[in-house]
Parts: sequence; C-alpha cells; structure tokens
Amino acid sequence: MDTKKQIYLKASEMFLHHGYDRTPMSQIAKEVGISKAGLYHHHPCKESLLFDVIKYFNEKNFIPTCKEAIKISDPEKRLLFFFKKFIETMYADSSARILMHEANKLEPHHFDEVKKSWQMAYGLLKDAISEMQASGKVKKINSSYAAFAAIGMCSWMFYWIDYSRKDSPEELVETFLEIFMRGIIK
Amino acid sequence: MDTKKQIYLKASEMFLHHGYDRTPMSQIAKEVGISKAGLYHHHPCKESLLFDVIKYFNEKNFIPTCKEAIKISDPEKRLLFFFKKFIETMYADSSARILMHEANKLEPHHFDEVKKSWQMAYGLLKDAISEMQASGKVKKINSSYAAFAAIGMCSWMFYWIDYSRKDSPEELVETFLEIFMRGIIK
Repeated sequence: MDTKKQIYLKASEMFLHHGYDRTPMSQIAKEVGISKAGLYHHHPCKESLLFDVIKYFNEKNFIPTCKEAIKISDPEKRLLFFFKKFIETMYADSSARILMHEANKLEPHHFDEVKKSWQMAYGLLKDAISEMQASGKVKKINSSYAAFAAIGMCSWMFYWIDYSRKDSPEELVETFLEIFMRGIIK
Repeated sequence: MDTKKQIYLKASEMFLHHGYDRTPMSQIAKEVGISKAGLYHHHPCKESLLFDVIKYFNEKNFIPTCKEAIKISDPEKRLLFFFKKFIETMYADSSARILMHEANKLEPHHFDEVKKSWQMAYGLLKDAISEMQASGKVKKINSSYAAFAAIGMCSWMFYWIDYSRKDSPEELVETFLEIFMRGIIK
C-alpha cells in the first residue's frame, strides 16, 4: 500500500475514534510510521488532510455510485439502484461517519466541494421521484422532502449500526426499500 | 431568566456554532456575563456543562413527548403522535444537533444516561410497530429496522433544515408520515 493511502486509512480511523479536533498530526505520523515532516510533505495542514480523507471516501464510494446511477434511464430502477447502494455503502464503511460528522470543520471552499457530492445524491433522488410523479407512478408529495427522507434513513445508519457485525445488509435493504417505495408509490 | 438557564442557552448556542471542542469555558463565561469562577461554580468542568445542556434539552422536549406518547394505548395513534412531535421538535430547535453530534464527547457514565433517552424513543417506535403487526395492521417487516428508518428520517433533519426559516413544518410532517405509514401498513 502506498504512503498516501496509508495516511488516509490511518487518519480516517483516528478521526473516527477520537474526533478530528482531538487527533494531532504528530500522532497520525507516528501511527503511519513516518516523520511529522513527512506527513506535512503530503498535507500542508490538518484541514487539508481532513479534506483529502473525505475526498478519498467520496471518490471511492459515493461518486462512482452516483455516476453509475445516472446512466439508468428508468427512474424507478435508478432510484432502487442508488438507494440499495447507499445502504450497502453505509453498512460496509464506518468512515462515512467522518464525511457527515466532521465536514463542518472544513474551510468554506473545501466544504463547498464536499457539499457538491451531497447535492448530487439529493438531486439524483429528487429527480427520480419527480420523473416517477410525472409518469403517474408516484403520488403528489413534496419530492424534496421525500428525497431527504431517503437520505435520512440511510445516512443515520452510522449512528446505530454495529460495525463489528459481519452479516449481510440484505434484510435491511429489503426493509428500507419496502418502506420507502411503498411509501411513495401510488 | 436565571443564570442557570442563561448558561444552558449560551453554551448550547456556542457548541452549536463552533463545536464543543472549540468552545472554551472562559468564552462561555464572558458571553453569559459572569466570571469564569462563577461558571465553574455551576459546572465543575466543561464535560459536566455539556451533559447538563443535553439533559436540559432532553427534559424540555424529548422525555415529556415520550411520556405523553406512552400513555396512548392505541399503537397507531401512539406512533403517529410521537412521529409528528419528533419532526416538530427537530424543526423548531436546532440544539437537537448538539444532542446527536456532541454526545460522544461525554464521559461513559453520562453517555449511558443520554443513551437511555434514545433507547426510550427507539423502544417506543419499535413496540408500536410490533403491536400493529400483532393485530395484523402492519406487514411482516423487521420492526427494529423500521423504527430506525423513522428515527433516521427525523434525526437527519438537522443536517438540511434551514433554521432561519420560520414557516410551519406542516407539509414536512404530512410527507414523512405519509411515506412511513403507507410504507409499513399492510
């Protein structure tokens, strides 16, 4: 594994367990096994490291899922695909917690960039719901609120999922999709 | 307003805007208009202040709602009442964010006490769903996951609600209840 990836994984683990504010750069360097100067060579400050950790997570999980979903022309299939992937990602990767929890520590220009990925997910869900409404499949409900309901169900998972568990999220996917789809479909 | 309440409100506001870790006791004292010694007279340490702020929010909003809900014998009415109140509270009071966001900074014995109030809400929702299943009103779904779906929809609100808005949450209550109830009912 290259040093860059090692830094992301270790920093993400430490931000997750101790919080961003309570994790000093010196400790991250020590855990990775490099000098503090070596760490600062990769990241000019801790905030830039936080941003890169979040970006790494987004580029690995979130953005590819969005891009794959957008290609699906049928809005119902698109919604189902994205919702399922969202649950599976939240179930598999506890570092999503940092993305949500610590992003407000970012500098405004970095925060704006992270927000774009959130808006992508929100837009994807809202558009799919609106298209399904246009074709008469979904009842007249506020599609923004419905999109936020779906995001809330999935994003909240990191507060209650036991990440030491190794079982599959199959029943969870089934339950959430059943509630949401039956909840919006005419 | 008594000093105690003033401290809660100011600390809650500052934790909300700057984060718990970034809010020094000296600054809270200054904003309240008391001496640092005066603040330490009420709260032996910052962690005890955080605990009291969370307790204050819980005792003002959350626990009375749970207690009122538990009295309702019909499980569907109980579920509807609690869900609606949950949305209204999250909509009205941005300090719920501290409750969720900063509670992991508490000492274990304090965290356990806060967790009890979360478990009360979870139990309330799960039991109502299970009772509705027993009477044949709700389909066979995992009632724990369903309870977490409801909690997620509501709790996530603090991430996207614009707290400067002053309109009523009527349409939001309607949308969320429609999705969830239609989603679980046979």
